[in-house]
Amino acid sequence: MKKVGIVMGSIHDYEVVKPCIDILSDFGVDTEVRVISAHRTPIEAMEFATTAKQNGIEVIISVAGKAAHLGGVLASYTTLPIIGLPVKSSLEDGLDSLLSTVQMPNGVPVATVAINGGQNAGLLAIQILANKYEDLDKKLVEYKKEMQNTVNNDNAKLQDMLKR
Amino acid sequence: MKKVGIVMGSIHDYEVVKPCIDILSDFGVDTEVRVISAHRTPIEAMEFATTAKQNGIEVIISVAGKAAHLGGVLASYTTLPIIGLPVKSSLEDGLDSLLSTVQMPNGVPVATVAINGGQNAGLLAIQILANKYEDLDKKLVEYKKEMQNTVNNDNAKLQDMLKR
Amino acid sequence: MKKVGIVMGSIHDYEVVKPCIDILSDFGVDTEVRVISAHRTPIEAMEFATTAKQNGIEVIISVAGKAAHLGGVLASYTTLPIIGLPVKSSLEDGLDSLLSTVQMPNGVPVATVAINGGQNAGLLAIQILANKYEDLDKKLVEYKKEMQNTVNNDNAKLQDMLKR
Amino acid sequence: MKKVGIVMGSIHDYEVVKPCIDILSDFGVDTEVRVISAHRTPIEAMEFATTAKQNGIEVIISVAGKAAHLGGVLASYTTLPIIGLPVKSSLEDGLDSLLSTVQMPNGVPVATVAINGGQNAGLLAIQILANKYEDLDKKLVEYKKEMQNTVNNDNAKLQDMLKR
Amino acid sequence: MKKVGIVMGSIHDYEVVKPCIDILSDFGVDTEVRVISAHRTPIEAMEFATTAKQNGIEVIISVAGKAAHLGGVLASYTTLPIIGLPVKSSLEDGLDSLLSTVQMPNGVPVATVAINGGQNAGLLAIQILANKYEDLDKKLVEYKKEMQNTVNNDNAKLQDMLKR
Amino acid sequence: MKKVGIVMGSIHDYEVVKPCIDILSDFGVDTEVRVISAHRTPIEAMEFATTAKQNGIEVIISVAGKAAHLGGVLASYTTLPIIGLPVKSSLEDGLDSLLSTVQMPNGVPVATVAINGGQNAGLLAIQILANKYEDLDKKLVEYKKEMQNTVNNDNAKLQDMLKR
Amino acid sequence: MKKVGIVMGSIHDYEVVKPCIDILSDFGVDTEVRVISAHRTPIEAMEFATTAKQNGIEVIISVAGKAAHLGGVLASYTTLPIIGLPVKSSLEDGLDSLLSTVQMPNGVPVATVAINGGQNAGLLAIQILANKYEDLDKKLVEYKKEMQNTVNNDNAKLQDMLKR
Amino acid sequence: MKKVGIVMGSIHDYEVVKPCIDILSDFGVDTEVRVISAHRTPIEAMEFATTAKQNGIEVIISVAGKAAHLGGVLASYTTLPIIGLPVKSSLEDGLDSLLSTVQMPNGVPVATVAINGGQNAGLLAIQILANKYEDLDKKLVEYKKEMQNTVNNDNAKLQDMLKR
Repeated sequence: MKKVGIVMGSIHDYEVVKPCIDILSDFGVDTEVRVISAHRTPIEAMEFATTAKQNGIEVIISVAGKAAHLGGVLASYTTLPIIGLPVKSSLEDGLDSLLSTVQMPNGVPVATVAINGGQNAGLLAIQILANKYEDLDKKLVEYKKEMQNTVNNDNAKLQDMLKR
Repeated sequence: MKKVGIVMGSIHDYEVVKPCIDILSDFGVDTEVRVISAHRTPIEAMEFATTAKQNGIEVIISVAGKAAHLGGVLASYTTLPIIGLPVKSSLEDGLDSLLSTVQMPNGVPVATVAINGGQNAGLLAIQILANKYEDLDKKLVEYKKEMQNTVNNDNAKLQDMLKR
Repeated sequence: MKKVGIVMGSIHDYEVVKPCIDILSDFGVDTEVRVISAHRTPIEAMEFATTAKQNGIEVIISVAGKAAHLGGVLASYTTLPIIGLPVKSSLEDGLDSLLSTVQMPNGVPVATVAINGGQNAGLLAIQILANKYEDLDKKLVEYKKEMQNTVNNDNAKLQDMLKR
Repeated sequence: MKKVGIVMGSIHDYEVVKPCIDILSDFGVDTEVRVISAHRTPIEAMEFATTAKQNGIEVIISVAGKAAHLGGVLASYTTLPIIGLPVKSSLEDGLDSLLSTVQMPNGVPVATVAINGGQNAGLLAIQILANKYEDLDKKLVEYKKEMQNTVNNDNAKLQDMLKR
Repeated sequence: MKKVGIVMGSIHDYEVVKPCIDILSDFGVDTEVRVISAHRTPIEAMEFATTAKQNGIEVIISVAGKAAHLGGVLASYTTLPIIGLPVKSSLEDGLDSLLSTVQMPNGVPVATVAINGGQNAGLLAIQILANKYEDLDKKLVEYKKEMQNTVNNDNAKLQDMLKR
Repeated sequence: MKKVGIVMGSIHDYEVVKPCIDILSDFGVDTEVRVISAHRTPIEAMEFATTAKQNGIEVIISVAGKAAHLGGVLASYTTLPIIGLPVKSSLEDGLDSLLSTVQMPNGVPVATVAINGGQNAGLLAIQILANKYEDLDKKLVEYKKEMQNTVNNDNAKLQDMLKR
Repeated sequence: MKKVGIVMGSIHDYEVVKPCIDILSDFGVDTEVRVISAHRTPIEAMEFATTAKQNGIEVIISVAGKAAHLGGVLASYTTLPIIGLPVKSSLEDGLDSLLSTVQMPNGVPVATVAINGGQNAGLLAIQILANKYEDLDKKLVEYKKEMQNTVNNDNAKLQDMLKR
Repeated sequence: MKKVGIVMGSIHDYEVVKPCIDILSDFGVDTEVRVISAHRTPIEAMEFATTAKQNGIEVIISVAGKAAHLGGVLASYTTLPIIGLPVKSSLEDGLDSLLSTVQMPNGVPVATVAINGGQNAGLLAIQILANKYEDLDKKLVEYKKEMQNTVNNDNAKLQDMLKR
């Protein structure tokens, strides 16, 4: 089962969402990806969040920029964990997106990751699911090792570069 | 009728809202004041915004702090003008509230006033109504004169102070 | 009738103003567009604001960047609602423009929209006028539906993209 | 079982952590609370994170201020989800804490909540556990209703206040 | 003659202006101090600035907070040098005041001093006048020496303190 | 006579300084332009500032970026008015340059203009000199009129553009 | 021998400098503490920095706030390592002090520590000296262990607190 | 021996590190350059820092961006001086990197240089070593003179440019 809902406020955020979809796919997690705007299609946002749990979704990733209300709006309608991915829009380097996403009032948290941190949004969802699904836990341990290898390989390359 | 809806995200914002209620009352504008949280009572927010126009409300003032989504949420359900009043919460001197309120995406504006600018939120509502209600227009002109007098009186006091 | 005055501080802001003019035109609202600098042509600013109401202007949109004083200067001479559109100049990503526009003192509000939010400045003017002009109200409801359709169409496109 | 590890970088952060411990206790979740400094007791941090999973901990909450590295350090040693709670220290209103916590590189996310948002850190941990433990899910739904009631009661109080 | 005009936007800024008045008085420079609001008494602002030169004023100091437009407004009506003194209002630690004062467009400079830097605003006015009035130049040289003495005395005190 | 010293911290700032040199030249003011680094050639900075007055310099313009100490260093050695021109370096959009220039301690003001505001630095120098040199005062009045004409011509162009 | 020079821009910074003096004293390092203002006593600053090395000073700690030029000024006259300690003045929470201290141009570094981080300024000086003086190196290792003990003791206290 | 360890969090930071390696090489200081990620290879980070001293390393330069924890992590395992070089990543112009590097808690300083200030990180290391190695001290004095010459040459070029 393992299903993650990904809601992006605008189709223009697709490039930021792509690494998020990819990593979930790499880990064998199903995704339901939707364009829903908190401000332009609020009913769709409400319906998506209200029915997410019964539709088998276990974590929701919300992707939005500027006055990024999408995470908060979804969180108001469900008790599923909401991961907020702030998008760097053309202004303010994404500080507006970050603050609008993370500074949630008591009672309604949004688990915020780095600005434009699509891959991390996906990984966090996997970490949350891994508490229940042991195979994900194993894959995460594997993934962590691969990251180490990548860094160590980069280091080896650097040593070569410096020798020349 | 002239009616303004005032929605505050938390009863703790009352002190900031008070000057807003007062000025509307001074101008003879009816107010309907409500505590509705975008994140804790989203259904009430939706219902309030959806029915505001038919309930005779002509302008809505939204009062919220931190990740201040209330203005955007109300704006998503109505075409009435929404005035956003960002509240200085304990953190960030209200910059988070300001950016969360003002940086709205295309299609769904929120008319934002200064952080903690309760009186100005009320005045802006009156200016909006004054386009339709001539008596308000006259009172605004009067009010502007009184402000001038206040400043001029302050200046007179200062001259006295400096002479001593 | 329905007339909106648009004042830009510099002709270089035209690209930001264009979507504002366009949406007002789409809604059938007359516009009077002017280049007036608060700092270089203050007399023109005063005259424009002082005579705006008698010239049939019902809402003023002020467009300026950096130390964006234009909105405040116009607001000091009229009781018409002033919409402030902060322009992203080459520095500070427009934070200077935003703060100079929105942080107005008590008694003289400027209804501020997002940095470079030209379309929203126009829409807010229409929302203000719609309280008086019923046809605008109807068009706004229509416009809100079209926005929903656009988002839903984007979502449909995304589903196609993801299937491939 | 349901166990959450809470690591605070300094005992001075206890006031911020208290609401976090309380809400977890209210939901019947066991907590293991520790003072471990990323910079002064790095070995303890490594050991805690490395052994957390086998000690039955399912989610870790990291509490730190200023150059808040604790969340990242713990995340480097475990695949458990790490919730980062940035603390408002005496400087910068906590912006340094927030950025140091949330801006994590690809591969190692920290799920960040609002500055000083102790209660939300706890609630997010519960939401994560609720995917596995159905009783928590039910309690969360209950909790959401109580929040609604609180807001609605506040609204009722406000109506009384305004009538007088 | 040597006359400096000091215009403060609100009588509440008096505490910030006091050291400015004092230093000008210490140097024997006449001052004309006024409360004039750019937004509430724009006509007075225009008249003050327009007639300042013929009234013998040689430098104007403008004192304002938040969306601090006063300096810019005065500068738009006169070619006298305008010194902008940004006031720390209750919000943003005065960053809004600073940016609104200093980020002036080409053609209309405002000579900005530090936030709440009342004494420096006065000193800068004196430095400007000293180009014309030689006695001021001599006093400035004297003043600089006294400052050195003060620091050297502080250092002597410190050495005493440290010996104990 | 009328002489302005212009000191730039690096020859790379020449593009920002160019409009400053040009406007001074347009007004017939002599300039002495130098590359002096506060940090790399402190002795030259001291000598320049210490001897400026006797060399006939009446105002100094200091041009620097990042930790922009040049204005403060020059101001520490002379009582001449120092105009600080903060340069937008590659980082922070010049906020570091602005704060390093403007936030001077009591006793040692630096008259700060907008980030990259080369022309305004020159104009401010002219305004300061105009108190002593009447011909500059007249030219400034002329210049102000030309600016008005430019804006009015821009407005005329806009009206043409809009008619088409 | 081991001598550290501590220069504070104002005697008002003493409270911030105190922990710096104390830790150096605890480690048996001699200090020469001076009040020297970069802007009010530039000659003293130059003399102190120019002669520091021959006076046996091996590291200089510079303490200043706002437009904190002191570190840069000292660094311009000596090749000794300069540690910059930015002081939180009443404005901007010390961001101005931090940026003015750390953003030094190529060729003239200032080793910056946290805002108000007096103790760390002292410790960094000790770490620098420890490369040459072995006894300091041993004491640093001891100090690191004590810090660990303190944290571990805090943890023990916390466990007691939580049991009650 | 004179050896400096340079640790970069990602091979992508090489361009920023290059001037740092170059200046150390110019001064005849050995370098050991490594790619080690605080978050992806924490064991390598611990091992590097723990063994650095016995491997002859006398100063460590840490290069990292965003939530830049590398400096703090290395500092937690060694008493060697750590120089933190914050890297401008694609977001926030490096303010996140700067704050994450410099705002270290008491007891564990990181000597921070300017954002992207690779050359200065190297120079600071040399200044630290120069306390022990006299030849470096002499070279630093030489280097300072060359910098002066460069600036003076730039000034000469400027005078030529201006004459034309």
